[in-house]
Amino acid sequence: MASLRPVSAEEIESLAIGAWILGTGGGGSPYLALLNMRRLYRDGVVVSLVDPMDLADDDDVAVVSNMGAPLVGQERLTDPRTIARAVTMMEEYRGRRFGAIMSLEIGGGNAIQPFMAAALLDRPVVDADCMGRAFPEAQMTSFAIHDLPMYPLTLVDVRDNAVVVARAASWTWMERLSRTACVAVGSIAATCKAPRTGQEVKSCAILYSTSKAIRIGRTIQGARRDHRDPIAALVEAEQGLLLFTGKIADVARRATEGFLRGTATLDGLGEFRGARFELAFQNEFAVGWLDGGVRITTPDLICVLDSVSGDAIGTETLRYGQRVSVVALPAPSVLLTPKGLDHVGPRAFGYDLEFTSVFR
Amino acid sequence: MASLRPVSAEEIESLAIGAWILGTGGGGSPYLALLNMRRLYRDGVVVSLVDPMDLADDDDVAVVSNMGAPLVGQERLTDPRTIARAVTMMEEYRGRRFGAIMSLEIGGGNAIQPFMAAALLDRPVVDADCMGRAFPEAQMTSFAIHDLPMYPLTLVDVRDNAVVVARAASWTWMERLSRTACVAVGSIAATCKAPRTGQEVKSCAILYSTSKAIRIGRTIQGARRDHRDPIAALVEAEQGLLLFTGKIADVARRATEGFLRGTATLDGLGEFRGARFELAFQNEFAVGWLDGGVRITTPDLICVLDSVSGDAIGTETLRYGQRVSVVALPAPSVLLTPKGLDHVGPRAFGYDLEFTSVFR
Repeated sequence: MASLRPVSAEEIESLAIGAWILGTGGGGSPYLALLNMRRLYRDGVVVSLVDPMDLADDDDVAVVSNMGAPLVGQERLTDPRTIARAVTMMEEYRGRRFGAIMSLEIGGGNAIQPFMAAALLDRPVVDADCMGRAFPEAQMTSFAIHDLPMYPLTLVDVRDNAVVVARAASWTWMERLSRTACVAVGSIAATCKAPRTGQEVKSCAILYSTSKAIRIGRTIQGARRDHRDPIAALVEAEQGLLLFTGKIADVARRATEGFLRGTATLDGLGEFRGARFELAFQNEFAVGWLDGGVRITTPDLICVLDSVSGDAIGTETLRYGQRVSVVALPAPSVLLTPKGLDHVGPRAFGYDLEFTSVFR
Repeated sequence: MASLRPVSAEEIESLAIGAWILGTGGGGSPYLALLNMRRLYRDGVVVSLVDPMDLADDDDVAVVSNMGAPLVGQERLTDPRTIARAVTMMEEYRGRRFGAIMSLEIGGGNAIQPFMAAALLDRPVVDADCMGRAFPEAQMTSFAIHDLPMYPLTLVDVRDNAVVVARAASWTWMERLSRTACVAVGSIAATCKAPRTGQEVKSCAILYSTSKAIRIGRTIQGARRDHRDPIAALVEAEQGLLLFTGKIADVARRATEGFLRGTATLDGLGEFRGARFELAFQNEFAVGWLDGGVRITTPDLICVLDSVSGDAIGTETLRYGQRVSVVALPAPSVLLTPKGLDHVGPRAFGYDLEFTSVFR
């Protein structure tokens, strides 16, 4: 394995900001994970990033994420040892050591989970993920779209519980088995997903998404520093689209079946005064309606951002009165293929809608 | 390992009858498992029974059971390969071969599950279990009462799903994690519980319960053959107690949380005419009331039997109009200790009652 690049403490800060935007409301707030990384870096840790194209074909890569309802992830504090234990548990189960660790989803706190595991286990983090954003379910990944094996999976909690899903009849069964275990331990758990080879990562992952999240964070930080509009800076730098600006007028939310589901309604401000925007979410924002008509659907990224700071707002922290901007960012192309849309298009979330990208 | 004794096809028939009585309403009907054993024996299989006291201290023993709601176990046909796969999955997980297989609970179909696995895997069955009857939950065993480790556990279904509970923070967590996985695959699953050493079996199991179930079955069969009353024969041979004879007047039953819960009401017949007996169950009968007063509670065995044939009636097959006898049989002494009652006394089932054995 070659070309490790140390990641600075500043880059971790940028990563937290950018990943939270790519989370499209989910992936869990990066805040608690960021606090842990600050402490680890103060203690002298430096995590390295490895270019995925430098992986050897037979390298073993761990794919990690915190799984569950974001609302619960806010309430239960984050301990880096939990995600590290999911990784070592998989190593024990397979009898093989991982050479590197990558994120399941670059959105939200799950962008930082591999860094916490990497810090404790002294491994590099791969500059990639398999969603290019965040999604709520196991089969909503580029690895699933490419029909890679879905098992084994290890799941651990903050007590001394550990479950291995050794075999699953399908991705849907993997989702169901891991989700019910997650709900049983309190709707939040650290998981190590099906291990991948270097070859699989190179051919099937969303490459360089860690760098992208860091870059997005830097864009926001730079605009703030220069007293420019961070929303406008983001839209320009990432070829995004401003869909709406308004004030949150209503939020309905429930933690159910291991997910956070609900809706939010926005009353327009500025050029959108008099208009109304509605959002539906399952951990992440799935569909947006402008004045009753479908404006945007998954897998286009639907990012709800604080209109002043440019910080992302998670589905668990939406609240009445927030001034927000709804920004669309482009989805990775693998999600836009017919097979990709089967996994992550609006119908995969129960909406009988055709997907039409706002970027067409 | 020494002294294997071949079990005849006739003994399997007796085992099915006796185990169903020891099931106290649960453990699952042995019928589908019995059909499988008849076919295996017709194909030339002969399973051997090993005396638990002949196990070497370091022998590895698999402890198996079908887990879930008995009602579902009636509806989904039994395939011996499922329970065998739970065993081989545990062997793969631990990297060690089992020398013998034993039953978690001698009550109901779970008395025959180790025979099906043994037939396919060519291992002996240990003449023992760890309940001496049937109970609904993981921590309701003599192994739990003796504080033996509760993990690992393997769980497989009839599809290609397999879960390993690799660690559990407590017996209650083991119950919760395995139960939710069981519910996820349809409320019935084959399980291989925490492996035991020969030493642990010898010191902590309920010994010779397989022989006891065969003996009870023979008692019933003998009475039928000689046109004697099978209920009276059972009570006499096993130092039991006839608590009630009557007709089922009402049944309320629901499959919930991976269990079959409910109540049944009996109107007295013969010497009990004018009296009423009520039963509450969670898979197995837990409490019986005679005319509103507590008459019997778990862990005393509460057996509901067809008054004519002496066949046991499971909580899933109770129905209006059945003529039944309620017989109490003595529980293994380990269940009657203070620690035992913590695990399997009435309070463990949510009834705020002191346990007083009907045999005191």
